[in-house]
Amino acid sequence: MKLKRGLIQIYTGDGKGKTTAAIGQALRALGHEFRVGMVSFFKDPHLDYDEIKILRNLRVDIFRFAPKHPHFCDVDFKEVRKDCLKALRFIQEIFQREEYDLLILDEINVALRDGFLTEEEIFTLLDKKPQHLELILTGRGATEALIKKADLATEMKKIKHPFDKGIKGRKGIEF
Amino acid sequence: MKLKRGLIQIYTGDGKGKTTAAIGQALRALGHEFRVGMVSFFKDPHLDYDEIKILRNLRVDIFRFAPKHPHFCDVDFKEVRKDCLKALRFIQEIFQREEYDLLILDEINVALRDGFLTEEEIFTLLDKKPQHLELILTGRGATEALIKKADLATEMKKIKHPFDKGIKGRKGIEF
Repeated sequence: MKLKRGLIQIYTGDGKGKTTAAIGQALRALGHEFRVGMVSFFKDPHLDYDEIKILRNLRVDIFRFAPKHPHFCDVDFKEVRKDCLKALRFIQEIFQREEYDLLILDEINVALRDGFLTEEEIFTLLDKKPQHLELILTGRGATEALIKKADLATEMKKIKHPFDKGIKGRKGIEF
Repeated sequence: MKLKRGLIQIYTGDGKGKTTAAIGQALRALGHEFRVGMVSFFKDPHLDYDEIKILRNLRVDIFRFAPKHPHFCDVDFKEVRKDCLKALRFIQEIFQREEYDLLILDEINVALRDGFLTEEEIFTLLDKKPQHLELILTGRGATEALIKKADLATEMKKIKHPFDKGIKGRKGIEF
């Protein structure tokens, strides 16, 4: 147990740096021998997210749910919602086992924004967070009520982004 | 050489997540076998920044300049400026050697904001960036002209922060 009282952090907004801030936070915490876990939503396991490999080597446990998002793939809303609910149950189990000092819920804000999870479902989960656990929620579209529930919230606000100039995502930088 | 054309990224603003986003970006890039370096300003080597240890283990080279900032320590403006200029010369040498695919200049925006470096000095440096190198500048107070010079800029905007409630910086989380 590393923290007397773990907080809830949120990284949201349309700018670059939400997931990377969570990963950087994980690295800092690992430097202090925190036990770190990450539950990620909407990340296709077939894609080449190579930071995952390094995080795993650093003994970060990584769990993936709802790998497909209807915005990008041919997948049914109901199926995604089912996967997201499965993730919530899984996270609740993690909470009960108290295995981690820091847990990242990557892109969970998107699950809320797009209606795969309700505020009530997420709030019920957050109310069960073990006291010592630092929890990080990332993703665009964090709702006002979710931000109210958090202790720390940063909006990653896009000032400019190379995508706007037609530069495509680059391996090692954007993914 | 990992990128045909490396860009200039800026993370600025008063919210949490600037340095951690740069570190997370470093981790992602390391996953793709980028060679990564970091030059940091205003980070006291006696303080316990344990992410540094992990980054070093991952073969990120870390160089520190101007460890003291007058805001926190008893140090002379001229001395800090001298250290910052030394850093600029050092970065220029790094550029010439083309040793890295990604280079982080952590808190350099603060050196500009607080007048230890001029815009002209930094722009002269940026103009010498090797084409393939991705460069990340972090710190509060990036000027409008600096942002104009960058390809990507994110403002980490504080929505809420536990410091405002009197909660102090926590080992493993804030440092």
